[in-house]
Amino acid sequence: MGTTRLLLPILAVAVMSGCSNSSFDPAKESAGLLKRDAEWADTAFAGKDAEKTASYWSDDAVVIPPGQPVIEGKAAIRAFVADSFRTPGFRIHWTSEAPAFSPDGKLAYMRSTTTTTAPGPGGAAMSSSSRGITVWRRGEDGRWLCVVDIWNDPPGAPAPAKSP
Amino acid sequence: MGTTRLLLPILAVAVMSGCSNSSFDPAKESAGLLKRDAEWADTAFAGKDAEKTASYWSDDAVVIPPGQPVIEGKAAIRAFVADSFRTPGFRIHWTSEAPAFSPDGKLAYMRSTTTTTAPGPGGAAMSSSSRGITVWRRGEDGRWLCVVDIWNDPPGAPAPAKSP
Repeated sequence: MGTTRLLLPILAVAVMSGCSNSSFDPAKESAGLLKRDAEWADTAFAGKDAEKTASYWSDDAVVIPPGQPVIEGKAAIRAFVADSFRTPGFRIHWTSEAPAFSPDGKLAYMRSTTTTTAPGPGGAAMSSSSRGITVWRRGEDGRWLCVVDIWNDPPGAPAPAKSP
Repeated sequence: MGTTRLLLPILAVAVMSGCSNSSFDPAKESAGLLKRDAEWADTAFAGKDAEKTASYWSDDAVVIPPGQPVIEGKAAIRAFVADSFRTPGFRIHWTSEAPAFSPDGKLAYMRSTTTTTAPGPGGAAMSSSSRGITVWRRGEDGRWLCVVDIWNDPPGAPAPAKSP
């Protein structure tokens, strides 16, 4: 009887803490992740802080831009962003759709549409639209980081512009 | 005492079944998913069974091919595959890298490299390479289905060929 009295609360705690999805609120996480993504887009749009812009990707993130080499890891991504920010006339902004989550709320993916402005072949600013997928991972600290970032051009698009 | 004797096994079952990640074996799921993906690639390479090829995508899957409209849902994807299979000289095959999983083992993503052969602008068969990301969801039945499929061209690629 003494043993079962001891075991019951231990088991109850195990039930509550062992299931990570028990603390996952899809509506709350969805709103939080979309807000974070929108802040990221605004930071990128400002075009000033490559370090802060790169901080939304995980250390092991992979960026796959059309027509360019795959960019792997935070250092390479930071250089890619800094290079874009140094390009005169460069501008980028995006909006994303509601994410889909793993049942435990630790992995998510979402679709986004991006507008990029960059110098075209003749040097004049050229805007183009792309659509893509980002995959996100939620860390132990609850913070979402982008682990995969891939996009391509819609029908009838001109040659892809250089963009993060 | 009678109550606790009844409660203990119930709680033990709750601990075991309530935590979906307790049954998740990353090495086993990784091998299983890569095997399934390879079977899918072989089915697509055979170029005969659009229905079976489409069965690897979920009903709500999204396929995002470069330079073409986004394809949403199983019916549209099946038509897209059937159309590709009817194209004379069409061939597709891919290989994928080890997937990354959500902690509960219910969502995964992986990188893949695809070779597609299709008639070029002059009508002659033209092979091209692309790299992409697939996102996968594991259903209640344990079966993995592709929910997102997006790819783009590497540096120096010619105009994208029509391909699933």
